[in-house]
Amino acid sequence: VSGGAEWVHLDGRLMRAREARLSVLDRGLLYGDGLFETLRVADGRLFRLEAHLERLAASAARIDLPLPWPRDTLAAAIQETIRANRVRGGAIRLTVTRGEGPPGPESDADSEPHFFVTVRPATPAVAAITLAVAGRHPRTFVPGIKSLCFLPFLQARREARRRGFDDALLTAEGAAVEASTANLFIVRQGALWTPDLESGCLPGITRAAILEIARRVQVPAREAPVPVRLPGEAREAFLTSSVAGVVPVASLEGAPLPGGAPGPVTRRLITLYNACVAEEAA
Amino acid sequence: VSGGAEWVHLDGRLMRAREARLSVLDRGLLYGDGLFETLRVADGRLFRLEAHLERLAASAARIDLPLPWPRDTLAAAIQETIRANRVRGGAIRLTVTRGEGPPGPESDADSEPHFFVTVRPATPAVAAITLAVAGRHPRTFVPGIKSLCFLPFLQARREARRRGFDDALLTAEGAAVEASTANLFIVRQGALWTPDLESGCLPGITRAAILEIARRVQVPAREAPVPVRLPGEAREAFLTSSVAGVVPVASLEGAPLPGGAPGPVTRRLITLYNACVAEEAA
Repeated sequence: VSGGAEWVHLDGRLMRAREARLSVLDRGLLYGDGLFETLRVADGRLFRLEAHLERLAASAARIDLPLPWPRDTLAAAIQETIRANRVRGGAIRLTVTRGEGPPGPESDADSEPHFFVTVRPATPAVAAITLAVAGRHPRTFVPGIKSLCFLPFLQARREARRRGFDDALLTAEGAAVEASTANLFIVRQGALWTPDLESGCLPGITRAAILEIARRVQVPAREAPVPVRLPGEAREAFLTSSVAGVVPVASLEGAPLPGGAPGPVTRRLITLYNACVAEEAA
Repeated sequence: VSGGAEWVHLDGRLMRAREARLSVLDRGLLYGDGLFETLRVADGRLFRLEAHLERLAASAARIDLPLPWPRDTLAAAIQETIRANRVRGGAIRLTVTRGEGPPGPESDADSEPHFFVTVRPATPAVAAITLAVAGRHPRTFVPGIKSLCFLPFLQARREARRRGFDDALLTAEGAAVEASTANLFIVRQGALWTPDLESGCLPGITRAAILEIARRVQVPAREAPVPVRLPGEAREAFLTSSVAGVVPVASLEGAPLPGGAPGPVTRRLITLYNACVAEEAA
Protein backbone atom coordinates (compact mmCIF):
# COMPACT_ATOMS: atom_id res chain seq x y z
CA VAL A 1 0.00 0.00 0.00
CA SER A 2 1.07 3.56 -0.50
CA GLY A 3 0.37 4.15 3.14
CA GLY A 4 -0.16 1.25 5.54
CA ALA A 5 -3.02 -1.20 5.85
CA GLU A 6 -3.09 -1.57 9.57
CA TRP A 7 -6.44 0.06 10.23
CA VAL A 8 -9.79 -1.61 9.71
CA HIS A 9 -13.23 -0.08 10.22
CA LEU A 10 -15.54 -2.56 11.92
CA ASP A 11 -19.14 -1.70 12.78
CA GLY A 12 -18.42 1.98 12.82
CA ARG A 13 -15.15 1.97 14.71
CA LEU A 14 -11.59 2.22 13.45
CA MET A 15 -9.31 -0.38 14.98
CA ARG A 16 -6.01 -2.12 14.40
CA ALA A 17 -6.37 -4.82 11.77
CA ARG A 18 -5.30 -7.51 14.21
CA GLU A 19 -8.15 -6.52 16.54
CA ALA A 20 -10.82 -6.66 13.82
CA ARG A 21 -12.47 -9.99 14.42
CA LEU A 22 -15.90 -11.51 14.03
CA SER A 23 -17.54 -14.45 15.70
CA VAL A 24 -17.00 -17.83 14.09
CA LEU A 25 -20.80 -18.08 14.30
CA ASP A 26 -21.29 -15.18 11.91
CA ARG A 27 -23.32 -16.46 8.99
CA GLY A 28 -21.03 -14.56 6.67
CA LEU A 29 -18.32 -17.01 7.62
CA LEU A 30 -20.47 -20.12 8.11
CA TYR A 31 -22.42 -19.80 4.86
CA GLY A 32 -20.91 -16.99 2.78
CA ASP A 33 -24.06 -15.08 3.67
CA GLY A 34 -22.97 -11.54 2.97
CA LEU A 35 -21.92 -9.11 0.28
CA PHE A 36 -18.99 -6.95 -0.65
CA GLU A 37 -17.94 -4.07 -2.83
CA THR A 38 -14.41 -3.25 -3.91
CA LEU A 39 -13.34 0.17 -5.13
CA ARG A 40 -10.10 1.51 -6.46
CA VAL A 41 -8.46 4.34 -4.58
CA ALA A 42 -6.52 6.59 -6.94
CA ASP A 43 -4.81 9.68 -5.59
CA GLY A 44 -6.80 9.08 -2.46
CA ARG A 45 -10.11 9.33 -4.33
CA LEU A 46 -12.85 6.89 -5.19
CA PHE A 47 -14.70 6.40 -8.45
CA ARG A 48 -18.50 6.24 -8.20
CA LEU A 49 -18.83 5.37 -4.54
CA GLU A 50 -22.55 6.12 -4.78
CA ALA A 51 -22.99 3.53 -7.51
CA HIS A 52 -21.25 0.93 -5.37
CA LEU A 53 -23.45 1.69 -2.38
CA GLU A 54 -26.47 1.57 -4.66
CA ARG A 55 -25.47 -1.86 -5.96
CA LEU A 56 -24.84 -3.06 -2.43
CA ALA A 57 -28.33 -1.95 -1.39
CA ALA A 58 -29.90 -3.61 -4.43
CA SER A 59 -28.03 -6.87 -3.78
CA ALA A 60 -28.93 -6.80 -0.11
CA ALA A 61 -32.61 -6.42 -0.98
CA ARG A 62 -32.37 -9.47 -3.21
CA ILE A 63 -31.08 -11.67 -0.42
CA ASP A 64 -33.22 -10.05 2.30
CA LEU A 65 -30.15 -8.77 4.06
CA PRO A 66 -31.01 -5.74 6.14
CA LEU A 67 -28.54 -2.86 5.93
CA PRO A 68 -29.29 -1.00 9.13
CA TRP A 69 -26.76 1.76 8.45
CA PRO A 70 -27.48 5.02 6.67
CA ARG A 71 -25.57 5.17 3.44
CA ASP A 72 -23.65 8.15 4.81
CA THR A 73 -22.33 5.97 7.63
CA LEU A 74 -20.89 3.48 5.18
CA ALA A 75 -19.43 6.22 3.00
CA ALA A 76 -17.86 7.90 6.03
CA ALA A 77 -16.36 4.62 7.24
CA ILE A 78 -14.78 4.13 3.83
CA GLN A 79 -13.32 7.62 3.79
CA GLU A 80 -12.05 7.29 7.35
CA THR A 81 -10.37 3.99 6.53
CA ILE A 82 -8.63 5.53 3.54
CA ARG A 83 -7.43 8.43 5.66
CA ALA A 84 -6.34 6.29 8.60
CA ASN A 85 -4.23 4.09 6.34
CA ARG A 86 -3.00 7.08 4.32
CA VAL A 87 -3.93 5.24 1.14
CA ARG A 88 -3.15 7.12 -2.05
CA GLY A 89 -3.42 4.19 -4.40
CA GLY A 90 -4.89 0.78 -3.71
CA ALA A 91 -8.23 -0.88 -3.27
CA ILE A 92 -10.81 -0.56 -0.56
CA ARG A 93 -13.33 -3.21 0.28
CA LEU A 94 -16.63 -2.85 2.11
CA THR A 95 -17.97 -6.15 3.42
CA VAL A 96 -21.37 -6.81 4.98
CA THR A 97 -22.17 -10.05 6.81
CA ARG A 98 -25.49 -11.42 8.01
CA GLY A 99 -24.19 -11.67 11.56
CA GLU A 100 -24.85 -14.29 14.18
CA GLY A 101 -28.26 -15.93 14.20
CA PRO A 102 -29.71 -19.12 15.55
CA PRO A 103 -27.22 -21.84 14.63
CA GLY A 104 -27.92 -23.96 11.56
CA PRO A 105 -28.84 -23.00 8.03
CA GLU A 106 -32.56 -22.93 8.74
CA SER A 107 -33.08 -19.46 10.01
CA ASP A 108 -31.36 -16.14 10.16
CA ALA A 109 -33.97 -14.53 12.35
CA ASP A 110 -32.54 -12.10 14.89
CA SER A 111 -29.15 -11.95 13.27
CA GLU A 112 -27.50 -8.55 13.43
CA PRO A 113 -25.46 -7.64 10.37
CA HIS A 114 -21.90 -6.40 10.60
CA PHE A 115 -19.91 -4.28 8.22
CA PHE A 116 -16.22 -3.72 7.88
CA VAL A 117 -13.88 -1.82 5.62
CA THR A 118 -10.41 -3.03 4.67
CA VAL A 119 -7.75 -1.74 2.33
CA ARG A 120 -5.11 -3.44 0.25
CA PRO A 121 -2.19 -2.34 -1.88
CA ALA A 122 -2.47 -1.38 -5.50
CA THR A 123 -1.54 -4.33 -7.65
CA PRO A 124 1.04 -3.32 -10.26
CA ALA A 125 -0.66 -2.13 -13.43
CA VAL A 126 -0.31 -4.58 -16.29
CA ALA A 127 -0.19 -3.69 -19.96
CA ALA A 128 -2.32 -6.65 -20.98
CA ILE A 129 -3.26 -10.06 -19.66
CA THR A 130 -3.61 -13.56 -21.00
CA LEU A 131 -6.89 -15.39 -20.46
CA ALA A 132 -7.64 -19.08 -20.20
CA VAL A 133 -11.11 -20.52 -20.52
CA ALA A 134 -11.40 -22.07 -17.08
CA GLY A 135 -14.09 -22.59 -14.54
CA ARG A 136 -17.81 -23.00 -14.71
CA HIS A 137 -19.51 -19.78 -13.72
CA PRO A 138 -21.66 -20.44 -10.66
CA ARG A 139 -24.60 -18.33 -11.94
CA THR A 140 -26.45 -18.45 -8.68
CA PHE A 141 -30.15 -17.93 -8.99
CA VAL A 142 -29.55 -14.48 -7.61
CA PRO A 143 -27.49 -13.46 -10.62
CA GLY A 144 -25.24 -10.49 -10.36
CA ILE A 145 -24.94 -10.11 -6.62
CA LYS A 146 -21.40 -9.87 -5.31
CA SER A 147 -21.68 -12.28 -2.42
CA LEU A 148 -19.05 -13.70 -0.13
CA CYS A 149 -19.38 -16.98 -2.06
CA PHE A 150 -16.35 -16.24 -4.18
CA LEU A 151 -14.55 -19.58 -4.18
CA PRO A 152 -15.54 -20.60 -7.74
CA PHE A 153 -13.83 -17.46 -9.01
CA LEU A 154 -10.71 -18.05 -6.94
CA GLN A 155 -10.57 -21.61 -8.18
CA ALA A 156 -11.00 -20.65 -11.82
CA ARG A 157 -8.22 -18.12 -11.48
CA ARG A 158 -6.00 -20.65 -9.78
CA GLU A 159 -6.58 -23.17 -12.54
CA ALA A 160 -5.76 -20.56 -15.16
CA ARG A 161 -2.56 -19.57 -13.38
CA ARG A 162 -1.51 -23.15 -12.95
CA ARG A 163 -1.77 -23.46 -16.72
CA GLY A 164 0.38 -20.37 -17.20
CA PHE A 165 -2.29 -17.79 -17.89
CA ASP A 166 -3.01 -14.62 -15.95
CA ASP A 167 -6.73 -15.04 -15.41
CA ALA A 168 -9.73 -17.20 -16.20
CA LEU A 169 -12.73 -16.58 -18.38
CA LEU A 170 -15.59 -18.39 -16.65
CA THR A 171 -18.35 -19.87 -18.75
CA ALA A 172 -21.85 -21.20 -18.21
CA GLU A 173 -23.97 -23.25 -20.56
CA GLY A 174 -21.86 -22.46 -23.57
CA ALA A 175 -21.56 -18.74 -22.93
CA ALA A 176 -18.68 -16.60 -21.73
CA VAL A 177 -19.72 -14.81 -18.55
CA GLU A 178 -16.86 -12.90 -16.97
CA ALA A 179 -13.30 -13.19 -15.72
CA SER A 180 -12.54 -14.04 -12.11
CA THR A 181 -12.74 -10.44 -10.93
CA ALA A 182 -13.71 -8.46 -14.02
CA ASN A 183 -16.32 -8.13 -16.75
CA LEU A 184 -15.49 -9.05 -20.34
CA PHE A 185 -15.84 -6.93 -23.46
CA ILE A 186 -14.96 -8.00 -26.97
CA VAL A 187 -14.62 -5.87 -30.09
CA ARG A 188 -15.97 -7.20 -33.38
CA GLN A 189 -16.40 -5.20 -36.55
CA GLY A 190 -15.77 -2.02 -34.64
CA ALA A 191 -18.55 -2.74 -32.13
CA LEU A 192 -18.47 -3.64 -28.45
CA TRP A 193 -20.10 -6.76 -27.14
CA THR A 194 -20.40 -7.74 -23.50
CA PRO A 195 -22.36 -10.54 -21.83
CA ASP A 196 -25.81 -9.34 -20.77
CA LEU A 197 -26.70 -9.35 -17.08
CA GLU A 198 -28.83 -12.46 -17.60
CA SER A 199 -25.58 -14.33 -18.16
CA GLY A 200 -25.04 -14.10 -14.43
CA CYS A 201 -22.14 -11.65 -14.64
CA LEU A 202 -21.73 -8.93 -12.08
CA PRO A 203 -23.34 -5.61 -13.04
CA GLY A 204 -19.93 -3.97 -12.92
CA ILE A 205 -19.60 -0.28 -12.17
CA THR A 206 -16.78 0.04 -14.70
CA ARG A 207 -18.75 -2.07 -17.18
CA ALA A 208 -21.59 0.44 -16.88
CA ALA A 209 -19.17 3.35 -17.28
CA ILE A 210 -17.77 1.84 -20.50
CA LEU A 211 -21.26 1.30 -21.89
CA GLU A 212 -22.10 4.94 -21.07
CA ILE A 213 -18.93 6.17 -22.74
CA ALA A 214 -19.56 4.03 -25.81
CA ARG A 215 -23.06 5.47 -26.10
CA ARG A 216 -21.73 8.99 -25.73
CA VAL A 217 -19.09 8.63 -28.45
CA GLN A 218 -21.33 6.47 -30.62
CA VAL A 219 -19.34 3.28 -30.56
CA PRO A 220 -22.01 0.61 -31.10
CA ALA A 221 -22.32 -1.62 -28.04
CA ARG A 222 -24.55 -4.57 -27.28
CA GLU A 223 -25.27 -6.52 -24.15
CA ALA A 224 -26.15 -10.03 -25.24
CA PRO A 225 -25.04 -13.61 -24.66
CA VAL A 226 -21.48 -14.17 -25.88
CA PRO A 227 -21.02 -17.74 -27.13
CA VAL A 228 -17.82 -19.26 -25.78
CA ARG A 229 -16.10 -19.47 -29.15
CA LEU A 230 -16.63 -15.77 -29.95
CA PRO A 231 -13.98 -14.10 -27.78
CA GLY A 232 -11.38 -16.09 -29.69
CA GLU A 233 -12.74 -14.72 -32.97
CA ALA A 234 -12.80 -11.11 -31.79
CA ARG A 235 -10.43 -8.37 -32.98
CA GLU A 236 -9.87 -7.07 -29.48
CA ALA A 237 -10.96 -7.91 -25.98
CA PHE A 238 -10.62 -6.23 -22.62
CA LEU A 239 -11.65 -6.66 -19.02
CA THR A 240 -13.19 -4.05 -16.76
CA SER A 241 -13.19 -3.88 -12.99
CA SER A 242 -13.31 -1.24 -10.33
CA VAL A 243 -9.90 -2.20 -9.03
CA ALA A 244 -7.95 -2.58 -12.30
CA GLY A 245 -9.98 -0.34 -14.61
CA VAL A 246 -9.81 -1.31 -18.28
CA VAL A 247 -7.25 -4.05 -19.01
CA PRO A 248 -6.55 -5.28 -22.55
CA VAL A 249 -6.64 -9.00 -23.18
CA ALA A 250 -3.52 -10.08 -25.05
CA SER A 251 -4.60 -13.62 -25.82
CA LEU A 252 -7.28 -16.18 -25.17
CA GLU A 253 -6.10 -19.72 -24.60
CA GLY A 254 -2.83 -18.73 -26.19
CA ALA A 255 -4.29 -17.25 -29.37
CA PRO A 256 -3.41 -13.54 -29.61
CA LEU A 257 -6.24 -11.11 -30.24
CA PRO A 258 -5.40 -9.94 -33.76
CA GLY A 259 -6.29 -6.29 -33.19
CA GLY A 260 -3.56 -5.86 -30.57
CA ALA A 261 -3.58 -5.32 -26.84
CA PRO A 262 -4.64 -2.65 -26.57
CA GLY A 263 -6.16 -2.49 -30.02
CA PRO A 264 -7.37 0.84 -31.37
CA VAL A 265 -10.91 0.61 -29.95
CA THR A 266 -9.68 -0.48 -26.53
CA ARG A 267 -7.04 2.25 -26.51
CA ARG A 268 -9.64 4.88 -27.27
CA LEU A 269 -11.92 3.61 -24.51
CA ILE A 270 -9.07 3.57 -22.00
CA THR A 271 -8.36 7.21 -22.78
CA LEU A 272 -12.03 8.15 -22.45
CA TYR A 273 -12.42 6.12 -19.28
CA ASN A 274 -9.36 7.72 -17.67
CA ALA A 275 -10.73 11.14 -18.60
CA CYS A 276 -14.07 10.24 -17.07
CA VAL A 277 -12.41 9.13 -13.83
CA ALA A 278 -10.29 12.28 -13.69
CA GLU A 279 -13.27 14.49 -14.42
CA GLU A 280 -15.46 12.96 -11.73
CA ALA A 281 -12.62 13.21 -9.22
CA ALA A 282 -12.13 16.89 -10.03
CA VAL B 1 -29.46 -28.31 22.63
CA SER B 2 -29.68 -31.18 25.02
CA GLY B 3 -26.75 -29.70 26.84
CA GLY B 4 -25.54 -26.18 26.13
CA ALA B 5 -23.82 -24.74 23.11
CA GLU B 6 -21.54 -22.33 24.83
CA TRP B 7 -18.22 -24.00 24.03
CA VAL B 8 -16.42 -23.76 20.73
CA HIS B 9 -13.18 -25.47 19.74
CA LEU B 10 -10.96 -23.08 17.79
CA ASP B 11 -7.54 -24.10 16.50
CA GLY B 12 -7.21 -26.81 19.07
CA ARG B 13 -8.47 -24.95 22.10
CA LEU B 14 -11.87 -25.01 23.80
CA MET B 15 -13.25 -21.57 24.53
CA ARG B 16 -16.48 -19.78 25.26
CA ALA B 17 -18.47 -19.26 22.08
CA ARG B 18 -18.37 -15.50 22.50
CA GLU B 19 -14.55 -15.60 22.53
CA ALA B 20 -14.28 -17.69 19.37
CA ARG B 21 -13.44 -15.11 16.74
CA LEU B 22 -11.47 -14.95 13.54
CA SER B 23 -9.90 -12.06 11.71
CA VAL B 24 -12.09 -10.22 9.24
CA LEU B 25 -9.18 -10.77 6.86
CA ASP B 26 -9.61 -14.55 6.95
CA ARG B 27 -10.20 -15.70 3.40
CA GLY B 28 -12.91 -17.99 4.68
CA LEU B 29 -14.93 -14.88 5.45
CA LEU B 30 -13.76 -12.66 2.59
CA TYR B 31 -14.24 -15.25 -0.17
CA GLY B 32 -15.99 -18.29 1.27
CA ASP B 33 -12.63 -20.01 0.90
CA GLY B 34 -13.05 -22.94 3.23
CA LEU B 35 -14.93 -26.15 3.86
CA PHE B 36 -17.21 -27.68 6.43
CA GLU B 37 -18.68 -30.96 7.58
CA THR B 38 -21.81 -31.39 9.65
CA LEU B 39 -22.58 -34.54 11.64
CA ARG B 40 -25.51 -35.60 13.71
CA VAL B 41 -24.91 -36.33 17.35
CA ALA B 42 -27.31 -39.00 18.59
CA ASP B 43 -27.03 -40.23 22.16
CA GLY B 44 -23.73 -38.44 22.25
CA ARG B 45 -22.36 -40.49 19.33
CA LEU B 46 -21.40 -39.71 15.77
CA PHE B 47 -22.15 -41.64 12.60
CA ARG B 48 -19.19 -42.25 10.29
CA LEU B 49 -16.88 -39.55 11.53
CA GLU B 50 -14.06 -41.14 9.53
CA ALA B 51 -16.04 -40.81 6.30
CA HIS B 52 -16.61 -37.12 7.03
CA LEU B 53 -12.93 -36.50 7.70
CA GLU B 54 -12.12 -38.42 4.55
CA ARG B 55 -14.47 -36.25 2.50
CA LEU B 56 -13.03 -33.12 4.08
CA ALA B 57 -9.52 -34.20 3.12
CA ALA B 58 -10.60 -35.02 -0.44
CA SER B 59 -12.37 -31.67 -0.80
CA ALA B 60 -9.39 -29.83 0.63
CA ALA B 61 -7.09 -31.48 -1.89
CA ARG B 62 -9.35 -30.31 -4.69
CA ILE B 63 -9.12 -26.68 -3.67
CA ASP B 64 -5.45 -26.87 -2.62
CA LEU B 65 -6.36 -26.13 0.96
CA PRO B 66 -3.72 -27.52 3.28
CA LEU B 67 -5.03 -29.33 6.35
CA PRO B 68 -2.04 -29.11 8.67
CA TRP B 69 -3.71 -31.08 11.47
CA PRO B 70 -3.52 -34.83 11.94
CA ARG B 71 -6.94 -36.37 11.51
CA ASP B 72 -6.82 -37.45 15.13
CA THR B 73 -6.56 -33.83 16.20
CA LEU B 74 -9.75 -32.95 14.35
CA ALA B 75 -11.55 -36.01 15.67
CA ALA B 76 -10.45 -35.23 19.22
CA ALA B 77 -11.60 -31.61 18.92
CA ILE B 78 -15.01 -32.81 17.80
CA GLN B 79 -15.32 -35.23 20.68
CA GLU B 80 -14.14 -32.62 23.18
CA THR B 81 -16.68 -30.12 21.91
CA ILE B 82 -19.47 -32.65 22.27
CA ARG B 83 -18.37 -33.42 25.82
CA ALA B 84 -17.86 -29.78 26.83
CA ASN B 85 -21.36 -28.87 25.66
CA ARG B 86 -22.83 -32.09 27.07
CA VAL B 87 -24.54 -32.69 23.74
CA ARG B 88 -26.67 -35.81 23.61
CA GLY B 89 -28.62 -34.94 20.49
CA GLY B 90 -27.87 -32.22 17.98
CA ALA B 91 -25.50 -31.42 15.19
CA ILE B 92 -21.82 -30.72 15.21
CA ARG B 93 -20.01 -28.76 12.56
CA LEU B 94 -16.32 -28.76 11.71
CA THR B 95 -15.26 -25.73 9.68
CA VAL B 96 -11.90 -25.11 8.03
CA THR B 97 -10.92 -21.71 6.64
CA ARG B 98 -8.01 -20.71 4.43
CA GLY B 99 -6.83 -18.17 6.97
CA GLU B 100 -5.32 -14.76 6.44
CA GLY B 101 -3.15 -14.23 3.43
CA PRO B 102 -1.99 -11.30 1.39
CA PRO B 103 -5.07 -9.13 0.88
CA GLY B 104 -6.93 -9.42 -2.40
CA PRO B 105 -8.19 -12.41 -4.31
CA GLU B 106 -4.95 -12.90 -6.22
CA SER B 107 -2.96 -15.01 -3.85
CA ASP B 108 -3.39 -17.13 -0.79
CA ALA B 109 0.32 -17.74 -0.31
CA ASP B 110 1.38 -17.87 3.32
CA SER B 111 -2.13 -18.11 4.66
CA GLU B 112 -2.47 -20.29 7.72
CA PRO B 113 -5.69 -22.31 7.88
CA HIS B 114 -7.92 -22.32 10.93
CA PHE B 115 -10.40 -24.89 12.10
CA PHE B 116 -13.24 -24.66 14.54
CA VAL B 117 -15.96 -26.90 15.89
CA THR B 118 -19.43 -25.68 16.84
CA VAL B 119 -22.59 -27.44 17.99
CA ARG B 120 -26.24 -26.69 17.55
CA PRO B 121 -29.50 -28.08 18.86
CA ALA B 122 -31.30 -30.98 17.28
CA THR B 123 -34.03 -29.69 15.04
CA PRO B 124 -37.34 -31.38 15.82
CA ALA B 125 -37.74 -34.55 13.76
CA VAL B 126 -40.33 -34.20 11.03
CA ALA B 127 -42.50 -37.00 9.66
CA ALA B 128 -42.24 -35.77 6.10
CA ILE B 129 -41.52 -32.55 4.25
CA THR B 130 -42.89 -30.66 1.30
CA LEU B 131 -40.53 -29.68 -1.49
CA ALA B 132 -40.67 -26.82 -3.95
CA VAL B 133 -38.60 -26.68 -7.09
CA ALA B 134 -36.61 -23.55 -6.32
CA GLY B 135 -33.14 -22.31 -6.92
CA ARG B 136 -30.58 -22.94 -9.57
CA HIS B 137 -27.94 -25.32 -8.26
CA PRO B 138 -24.60 -23.52 -8.31
CA ARG B 139 -22.69 -26.57 -9.59
CA THR B 140 -19.32 -25.05 -9.06
CA PHE B 141 -16.62 -26.46 -11.24
CA VAL B 142 -15.39 -28.25 -8.18
CA PRO B 143 -18.57 -30.31 -7.90
CA GLY B 144 -19.36 -31.98 -4.67
CA ILE B 145 -17.20 -30.05 -2.26
CA LYS B 146 -18.96 -28.66 0.76
CA SER B 147 -17.54 -25.18 0.75
CA LEU B 148 -18.43 -22.12 2.78
CA CYS B 149 -20.15 -20.75 -0.34
CA PHE B 150 -23.55 -21.82 0.82
CA LEU B 151 -25.68 -18.79 0.04
CA PRO B 152 -27.38 -20.27 -3.06
CA PHE B 153 -28.72 -23.07 -0.87
CA LEU B 154 -29.92 -20.69 1.83
CA GLN B 155 -31.61 -18.58 -0.80
CA ALA B 156 -33.32 -21.52 -2.46
CA ARG B 157 -34.62 -22.66 0.90
CA ARG B 158 -35.80 -19.18 1.74
CA GLU B 159 -37.67 -18.94 -1.56
CA ALA B 160 -39.32 -22.32 -0.94
CA ARG B 161 -40.38 -21.31 2.55
CA ARG B 162 -41.73 -18.00 1.36
CA ARG B 163 -43.93 -20.01 -0.98
CA GLY B 164 -45.14 -22.20 1.87
CA PHE B 165 -42.94 -25.26 1.35
CA ASP B 166 -40.46 -26.78 3.76
CA ASP B 167 -37.43 -27.01 1.50
CA ALA B 168 -36.18 -26.46 -2.02
CA LEU B 169 -35.15 -28.91 -4.69
CA LEU B 170 -32.36 -27.16 -6.58
CA THR B 171 -31.94 -27.85 -10.25
CA ALA B 172 -29.30 -27.32 -12.89
CA GLU B 173 -29.64 -27.57 -16.63
CA GLY B 174 -32.92 -29.43 -16.49
CA ALA B 175 -31.86 -31.92 -13.82
CA ALA B 176 -32.79 -32.23 -10.18
CA VAL B 177 -29.61 -32.03 -8.09
CA GLU B 178 -30.33 -31.94 -4.37
CA ALA B 179 -32.29 -30.18 -1.67
CA SER B 180 -30.81 -27.24 0.24
CA THR B 181 -29.08 -29.43 2.82
CA ALA B 182 -29.83 -33.00 1.70
CA ASN B 183 -29.49 -35.43 -1.17
CA LEU B 184 -32.53 -36.58 -3.10
CA PHE B 185 -33.72 -40.13 -3.77
CA ILE B 186 -36.81 -41.11 -5.71
CA VAL B 187 -38.48 -44.50 -5.92
CA ARG B 188 -39.83 -45.66 -9.29
CA GLN B 189 -41.02 -49.14 -10.09
CA GLY B 190 -39.54 -50.39 -6.84
CA ALA B 191 -36.10 -49.05 -7.65
CA LEU B 192 -34.09 -46.21 -6.15
CA TRP B 193 -32.77 -43.39 -8.26
CA THR B 194 -30.52 -40.58 -7.07
CA PRO B 195 -28.67 -37.89 -9.02
CA ASP B 196 -25.16 -39.01 -9.89
CA LEU B 197 -22.21 -37.09 -8.50
CA GLU B 198 -21.65 -35.47 -11.88
CA SER B 199 -24.87 -33.56 -11.23
CA GLY B 200 -22.90 -31.45 -8.78
CA CYS B 201 -24.64 -32.82 -5.69
CA LEU B 202 -22.72 -33.38 -2.50
CA PRO B 203 -21.33 -36.91 -2.09
CA GLY B 204 -23.44 -37.34 1.02
CA ILE B 205 -22.36 -39.72 3.75
CA THR B 206 -25.96 -40.77 4.34
CA ARG B 207 -26.52 -40.99 0.59
CA ALA B 208 -23.62 -43.45 0.43
CA ALA B 209 -25.00 -45.40 3.38
CA ILE B 210 -28.40 -45.74 1.67
CA LEU B 211 -26.75 -46.94 -1.54
CA GLU B 212 -24.77 -49.50 0.48
CA ILE B 213 -27.89 -50.70 2.24
CA ALA B 214 -29.84 -50.95 -1.00
CA ARG B 215 -27.06 -53.04 -2.51
CA ARG B 216 -27.00 -55.28 0.54
CA VAL B 217 -30.76 -55.95 0.53
CA GLN B 218 -30.93 -56.05 -3.27
CA VAL B 219 -33.11 -53.04 -3.84
CA PRO B 220 -32.07 -51.88 -7.32
CA ALA B 221 -30.46 -48.45 -7.17
CA ARG B 222 -29.00 -46.23 -9.82
CA GLU B 223 -26.99 -43.06 -9.71
CA ALA B 224 -27.82 -41.16 -12.87
CA PRO B 225 -29.13 -37.75 -13.96
CA VAL B 226 -32.68 -37.17 -12.71
CA PRO B 227 -34.63 -35.00 -15.16
CA VAL B 228 -36.54 -32.27 -13.33
CA ARG B 229 -39.97 -33.67 -14.20
CA LEU B 230 -39.21 -37.13 -12.80
CA PRO B 231 -39.45 -36.58 -9.04
CA GLY B 232 -43.06 -35.51 -9.58
CA GLU B 233 -43.74 -38.79 -11.38
CA ALA B 234 -42.12 -40.96 -8.72
CA ARG B 235 -44.01 -43.25 -6.31
CA GLU B 236 -41.96 -42.11 -3.33
CA ALA B 237 -39.17 -39.68 -2.64
CA PHE B 238 -36.94 -38.98 0.31
CA LEU B 239 -34.04 -36.80 1.35
CA THR B 240 -30.88 -37.90 3.11
CA SER B 241 -28.50 -35.86 5.21
CA SER B 242 -26.15 -36.43 8.08
CA VAL B 243 -28.13 -34.13 10.34
CA ALA B 244 -31.69 -35.28 9.59
CA GLY B 245 -31.08 -38.83 8.39
CA VAL B 246 -33.72 -40.14 5.98
CA VAL B 247 -36.72 -37.80 5.59
CA PRO B 248 -39.73 -38.72 3.44
CA VAL B 249 -40.93 -36.19 0.90
CA ALA B 250 -44.68 -35.71 1.20
CA SER B 251 -45.16 -33.63 -1.92
CA LEU B 252 -43.34 -31.87 -4.69
CA GLU B 253 -44.70 -28.47 -5.70
CA GLY B 254 -47.91 -29.42 -3.94
CA ALA B 255 -48.44 -32.75 -5.70
CA PRO B 256 -48.39 -35.60 -3.15
CA LEU B 257 -46.08 -38.54 -3.83
CA PRO B 258 -48.63 -41.29 -4.50
CA GLY B 259 -46.75 -44.03 -2.65
CA GLY B 260 -47.08 -42.22 0.68
CA ALA B 261 -44.63 -40.49 2.97
CA PRO B 262 -43.05 -42.67 3.99
CA GLY B 263 -44.01 -45.14 1.31
CA PRO B 264 -43.14 -48.81 1.75
CA VAL B 265 -39.68 -48.64 0.19
CA THR B 266 -38.74 -45.53 2.14
CA ARG B 267 -40.06 -47.04 5.36
CA ARG B 268 -37.97 -50.15 4.86
CA LEU B 269 -34.85 -48.09 4.18
CA ILE B 270 -35.44 -45.94 7.26
CA THR B 271 -35.60 -49.07 9.39
CA LEU B 272 -32.44 -50.47 7.83
CA TYR B 273 -30.65 -47.15 8.11
CA ASN B 274 -31.56 -46.77 11.78
CA ALA B 275 -30.32 -50.29 12.41
CA CYS B 276 -27.08 -49.48 10.62
CA VAL B 277 -26.58 -46.35 12.74
CA ALA B 278 -27.35 -48.24 15.94
CA GLU B 279 -25.03 -51.10 14.98
CA GLU B 280 -22.08 -48.85 14.17
CA ALA B 281 -22.60 -46.93 17.40
CA ALA B 282 -22.59 -50.15 19.41
